[in-house]
Amino acid sequence: MNGAESLVRTLLGSGVDTCFTNPGTSEMHFVAALDHVPGMRSILTLFEGVATGAADGYYRMAGRPASTLLHLGPGLANGLANLHNAKKGGSGVVNIVGEHAPSHIALDAPLTSDIEGIAGPVSHWVKTSHAARTVGADAAQAVQAARTAPGQIATLILPSETAWTQGGAVAFAEAPPAPAMPDADALAKAAEALDGPGSLLLLGGGALTAENLETAGRIAARTGCAILSEWSNARMERGAGRVFVGRVPYPIDIAIKVLEAFDRIVLVGARAPIGFFAYPGKPAVLTRDDARIVPLAGAGDDLTATLDTLCGRLGATDTPPAHVAERNAPATPTGPADADTIAAVLGQMIPENAIVVDESITTGRAFGPATAGAAPHTWLNNCGGSIGYSLPAAVGAAVACPDRPVLALTGDGSAMYTVQAIWTMAREALNITMVIFANRSYQILRGELTNVGVGNAGPRAIDMLSLDRPAINWVDMARSMGAEASAVSTAEALSEALAAGFATPGPVLIEVEM
Amino acid sequence: MNGAESLVRTLLGSGVDTCFTNPGTSEMHFVAALDHVPGMRSILTLFEGVATGAADGYYRMAGRPASTLLHLGPGLANGLANLHNAKKGGSGVVNIVGEHAPSHIALDAPLTSDIEGIAGPVSHWVKTSHAARTVGADAAQAVQAARTAPGQIATLILPSETAWTQGGAVAFAEAPPAPAMPDADALAKAAEALDGPGSLLLLGGGALTAENLETAGRIAARTGCAILSEWSNARMERGAGRVFVGRVPYPIDIAIKVLEAFDRIVLVGARAPIGFFAYPGKPAVLTRDDARIVPLAGAGDDLTATLDTLCGRLGATDTPPAHVAERNAPATPTGPADADTIAAVLGQMIPENAIVVDESITTGRAFGPATAGAAPHTWLNNCGGSIGYSLPAAVGAAVACPDRPVLALTGDGSAMYTVQAIWTMAREALNITMVIFANRSYQILRGELTNVGVGNAGPRAIDMLSLDRPAINWVDMARSMGAEASAVSTAEALSEALAAGFATPGPVLIEVEM
Repeated sequence: MNGAESLVRTLLGSGVDTCFTNPGTSEMHFVAALDHVPGMRSILTLFEGVATGAADGYYRMAGRPASTLLHLGPGLANGLANLHNAKKGGSGVVNIVGEHAPSHIALDAPLTSDIEGIAGPVSHWVKTSHAARTVGADAAQAVQAARTAPGQIATLILPSETAWTQGGAVAFAEAPPAPAMPDADALAKAAEALDGPGSLLLLGGGALTAENLETAGRIAARTGCAILSEWSNARMERGAGRVFVGRVPYPIDIAIKVLEAFDRIVLVGARAPIGFFAYPGKPAVLTRDDARIVPLAGAGDDLTATLDTLCGRLGATDTPPAHVAERNAPATPTGPADADTIAAVLGQMIPENAIVVDESITTGRAFGPATAGAAPHTWLNNCGGSIGYSLPAAVGAAVACPDRPVLALTGDGSAMYTVQAIWTMAREALNITMVIFANRSYQILRGELTNVGVGNAGPRAIDMLSLDRPAINWVDMARSMGAEASAVSTAEALSEALAAGFATPGPVLIEVEM
Repeated sequence: MNGAESLVRTLLGSGVDTCFTNPGTSEMHFVAALDHVPGMRSILTLFEGVATGAADGYYRMAGRPASTLLHLGPGLANGLANLHNAKKGGSGVVNIVGEHAPSHIALDAPLTSDIEGIAGPVSHWVKTSHAARTVGADAAQAVQAARTAPGQIATLILPSETAWTQGGAVAFAEAPPAPAMPDADALAKAAEALDGPGSLLLLGGGALTAENLETAGRIAARTGCAILSEWSNARMERGAGRVFVGRVPYPIDIAIKVLEAFDRIVLVGARAPIGFFAYPGKPAVLTRDDARIVPLAGAGDDLTATLDTLCGRLGATDTPPAHVAERNAPATPTGPADADTIAAVLGQMIPENAIVVDESITTGRAFGPATAGAAPHTWLNNCGGSIGYSLPAAVGAAVACPDRPVLALTGDGSAMYTVQAIWTMAREALNITMVIFANRSYQILRGELTNVGVGNAGPRAIDMLSLDRPAINWVDMARSMGAEASAVSTAEALSEALAAGFATPGPVLIEVEM
């Protein structure tokens, strides 16, 4: 077998059976191997940022890495921003990047670039295969790296002659190192810190599973501590019957105010709260100067065991947690679609077991409380701050969970970066309902202008944040790539459109004119 | 003045008066400075690859660098592929990339990344400003670097506190080093080599101006040498009344056949011909083993002076060159739109003084000869091989040359990578006619499957190269972003649509169903 076939067989044997692709000439042997070797689900994207963002969403929902297939340095470069997001969110991804044969690199052909250099800033693991016979072993190492908790970015670079040369050998990925547990001293300090008002259990990453939230809820009920999560969470289980966890707010002044209540903060899978950006005259660390921060467990540690042990130590194992009440049947929201009415509609309409991919930025600031009592669902945030993550992540989530409805909530500005995702949704008939909040603006930046101390922005500055000239017609955009679409401007119409979207098997886009 | 204002003033004072932007929070002071300082034309893009590709097209047509404004590492990453193309094409670009304040980088905020690491592989010059008072001087260095022949990628990283802190000082870019001239020995060797059949003058980069082609034409007429250009040319002047120069073909077998005729090859602004990719069992160097390659002048040398000197040495200064004849009035092409009929239509329809941005890939293989006698025009190729260059480059060319019609010719696969360019075309009312060759396929890869030795590609492999499920509706796509559009499937209809497009001031898209 040639190197490409050994690669496909190694990936499959190691549990990587999904590949988000945008191939070129140097990847043709990998593409050909897809025919010889059954079992790899290959999903074509028309832009590499869709492939890498899909791999991110896939990992969050499947709990295991997908692969991407990218064309040389520029193809990898196009996928870099969503790999940045995946890295910050703790998602494991196996990137397969084609490369010229070494003799061709020496000639500095047009597509020659420093692929390892491009990969480095977003990868935990980078390797170039040097012979067909080592491709399998290298791929197994890549899978092992990608699986290392909480999930890592592994980039395997495959010179074309290693793909087409015979002598490939299948290898199997070893198990990654077991996640660590905090020591007794750290547990003692955490247990001591969680004691009534003023104490906070701050959760992140894998601490936000339904099971772990239940444990955190027991701890809170027992100790009287508060629970919060980070602003951005790779995956959080939410909804009626679950333990409610608020998020540390994004707006820096509000975040500081919320965190002022706490002088003891235990971190489980979370990092100490900091501002998203630096602002002149404002602190970067959002907690009180006198707050005692107890870093109990990091993102890569065994968070379930950590919370269980902490819970036992606090004598809370049998303490019943507070659960979000079943929803009442509030009046159906009516009137113009704005942040509040949209939030109310979502609180009513999110279907049971839905996956919500949230890139709603300013429009979504009110979604958290309004949807806390919705039917049980999963909520995904962007953890790296590079906008354009949600439509691709929705692709990956839908591929990982074909039986669950996916709801992508995104600002119009964000959606444009990786708008090509809609085509892949249509091609794969993915069960995704997209809601585009069309405020025709990089709305968040209007607030940020003030935050960074620009008090009196003039028309040319405002023009750089305005998307209203021309207004994007999202219905045409969706239809151009094969998705159904409609535009709404009221809460009632949004409710109807959402119901229709959830009832449609393939992708549906709803433009909310705001 | 703060650092951001010193930056804008330094850029303007150094002749950089155009900025293709996609800003974020860390760039708000630069955006604000646009209001305080008149003169910078700021053009918003909805994806960074549009900004960098536009800067590439701008440089080729304006002959001086534009700036880009990009948001942190991920924003730069999204612009990387078209910076790769710009670098390979010898375009000068000044990238301004925002960065967190150093105190914030230490906290590893979500958007923190290794920006210098991301910039390195595509930049000739990278620097992070460390204080407001040095921003102006750093920017002046960046402009000088970008102007260094033939044009370089300069990336200036601006931590947010250097932008908002007072103490900025305007600086002025020094002239870059003067381009070099070949020595007498190299000129003697070149002059000796160019002697009748079997000798080739291979031109690239700045050797392809109308004036330089005239000189090359004199040399050819005097010595009997052939003239060719590289396959990809940043900018070539063509059309009736000019000296015709064919390109070294892309398909490797044809290229080898064409170059077999030459055992003496003089390079002026060009590199020795190599294959775009390595193929098993085929050579990477396309010239005969016994060919004598004379590298007279490289891309950064003074190519006009080189050709003039060579011409004088060969006694050809007064030799009249062969010019392409005025077009006859051939029959209007009719019938289904295919590579040949489209080529014939273009040969008739390219308007005088048009800028043709060519990313037509497989459909365009016949365009060269068919358009050789068109009205005089400028032709731009993609020099880096990363597809998705043409719509952004058309933006930049139209901004640089508002009085010239721009014609972007692109495959459907290529156009999707940076499709957001259409919105900027509409916003700026740019005089661009786009022709999308909708063959619903990465057609070039079907041929490449065979070239790399995959003889019997199966359905799953072919599926990874097929864009027909769903077919993209380019008319809806264009309209969604504010451009006029129509679809055609015959040569007659294409002629009519082109005429209408050229008569329309703003952007028009024509989908050619093939």
